[in-house]
Amino acid sequence: RVVNFSAGPSMLPLPVLEEVRGEIVDYRSTGMSMIEMSHRSGPYESVHHGAVTLIRELFAVPAEFEVLFIQGGATMQFGMVPMNLLTGSSAGAYVDTGAWATKAFGDAAHHGDVYEAWSGRDIGYTRVPEAAALSLRGDTRYVHITSNETIGGIQYRAWPDVAVPLVADMSSDLFSRSIPWELFDVVYGGVQKNLAPAGLALVFVRRSTLEHTQRNLASYFRYDVHASKSSMYNTPPVFPIYVLEKVLRWIRDCGGLSAMEAGANARADLLYRTIDESGGFYVNPVDAASRSSMNAVFRLSDRSLEPQFITAASERGMVGLKGHRSDGGCRASMYNAMPLAGVEALRQLMIDFKDAAG
Amino acid sequence: RVVNFSAGPSMLPLPVLEEVRGEIVDYRSTGMSMIEMSHRSGPYESVHHGAVTLIRELFAVPAEFEVLFIQGGATMQFGMVPMNLLTGSSAGAYVDTGAWATKAFGDAAHHGDVYEAWSGRDIGYTRVPEAAALSLRGDTRYVHITSNETIGGIQYRAWPDVAVPLVADMSSDLFSRSIPWELFDVVYGGVQKNLAPAGLALVFVRRSTLEHTQRNLASYFRYDVHASKSSMYNTPPVFPIYVLEKVLRWIRDCGGLSAMEAGANARADLLYRTIDESGGFYVNPVDAASRSSMNAVFRLSDRSLEPQFITAASERGMVGLKGHRSDGGCRASMYNAMPLAGVEALRQLMIDFKDAAG
Repeated sequence: RVVNFSAGPSMLPLPVLEEVRGEIVDYRSTGMSMIEMSHRSGPYESVHHGAVTLIRELFAVPAEFEVLFIQGGATMQFGMVPMNLLTGSSAGAYVDTGAWATKAFGDAAHHGDVYEAWSGRDIGYTRVPEAAALSLRGDTRYVHITSNETIGGIQYRAWPDVAVPLVADMSSDLFSRSIPWELFDVVYGGVQKNLAPAGLALVFVRRSTLEHTQRNLASYFRYDVHASKSSMYNTPPVFPIYVLEKVLRWIRDCGGLSAMEAGANARADLLYRTIDESGGFYVNPVDAASRSSMNAVFRLSDRSLEPQFITAASERGMVGLKGHRSDGGCRASMYNAMPLAGVEALRQLMIDFKDAAG
Repeated sequence: RVVNFSAGPSMLPLPVLEEVRGEIVDYRSTGMSMIEMSHRSGPYESVHHGAVTLIRELFAVPAEFEVLFIQGGATMQFGMVPMNLLTGSSAGAYVDTGAWATKAFGDAAHHGDVYEAWSGRDIGYTRVPEAAALSLRGDTRYVHITSNETIGGIQYRAWPDVAVPLVADMSSDLFSRSIPWELFDVVYGGVQKNLAPAGLALVFVRRSTLEHTQRNLASYFRYDVHASKSSMYNTPPVFPIYVLEKVLRWIRDCGGLSAMEAGANARADLLYRTIDESGGFYVNPVDAASRSSMNAVFRLSDRSLEPQFITAASERGMVGLKGHRSDGGCRASMYNAMPLAGVEALRQLMIDFKDAAG
């Protein structure tokens, strides 16, 4: 198998894939595949509710939060958050930390009164803000943050503690670390990076919030409808949830969320150290305190060498290292399923490539 | 393997499942699974565009229609249709043929001026209307129909040809028959019955319609955004699309859409004949001209025997025959992957069960 640094969809644990292979034609002697079963059948319901239970346990989700499975990815939440939360005359504050925060803000503007509370545009999106730097209006219902910018490679390592609830897009660092739930009203994220195949978003909504969400919407757009039906108002995306449940068991067997967090930090530390010790051969543009533990972006100071570097990586079985098409350069995405050995191999390549170039 | 009469998710062709099993850990020597790959990678893009090409070819989709992959199922389209189409002062006419049409209408009411053009409520939803029976207002933008009612088991065998474009929810008969495209502006449906695992809707939108759809919406809700990005505005639901492409190849190898249509009619004819020849032991409440070729609902005239009948079916390896929880009774869903032999086995059971009861 290759070492897969793709930004998402991305690496899944091998034992999970092997388990899927063993069941995909005949799920546990039922005579059919999990993906052929009614979502009202016992085996599927057991997987569905089992996944929710594991999420609650591993992510330490307080009882006052609902755990929802909704299709459409984080992108659809860019619309659903203001549609549901911005009732009456309240406003949503958006913190602009890069490409994904910008998309969230642009989409929200169609569904409510939203404004920019801070922007890193003028500093090249090299860090996240301090809480004190946010300009908040008095009618602010929530502050929307992007906990980790997959493209820019910056991350909140400390959470902004402000006077109003946070809404966080955690698509690319969901389940890589614990969070202080008391700060949030809504946490959402696509699963296709740290948790499962594409086609599903996890949405955590504070129950008290649900008492005041918008009802004048088609059912699929309403958080309260998904909550009241345990995310089975309509047919759920069975396969991603089925694989998610297996990945959650794998996370538990690995030692839970703290093990994922320790792994993420070990991988990121090793890679950033390799960059910092390269004497400027490799460069990461992000302020040290905001460096992402999930997506490390870097350039070669001689940019003309970058295609050769990508090729050299590929020859050693490392793929997905090309930076996002909007930014260029290199990017190593290191999600939960990435073993430290994968980053060690990348480090060795970086050292060898530099030596060869020098 | 069991004979799976589930209403959806439902049976998939065995060769497709076996092909998935062979690739799920390592997709064609890429060193990773299709579900671990970037959706911008060559192998995925080839599957994605290959699926669109096969859909166009097999379903004879005219060039003036876009083929879109959107998450959220048909249920989300209940909201997206009026959001996108009811701009200005136009209205949507809804034809009430049962449970799904009612949901579509209820959801649409939150996003535009909609009205009921006909309802089968008072006749117990036993047939679809003639075109002449629809009451249409002059400002009608579209007439929404539910081509096949999965729960009620009624289907338009002839399409209503009215003065305004049709919008059709074809969730449960999509790809079971050809359609007269000139009548439609939008056709949509979940794939989890005739085509693929749950987590994806196919949406066909007339290109000229896209010039006038609503832009003041979050990106994920806009048909024009999905169209302009070939359904890759954000990460698509990779697995359902990957399996869909295989099912489409299977359909092509079986002889295409006409073979699916012939198969559907043969299965339905056999089952309805068994009911009609039972001397009232089994009863189907639907008018003959509106009987669904996909979902045959039936009761035993002695309803107290129904649990025994379901059990007897299960003992012969036939599952999913219980009617929808709202209606009770029995229902046999016979989608593309159901072999005629499956319905022959059901017929034999019905005959034997009646004989034993008599």
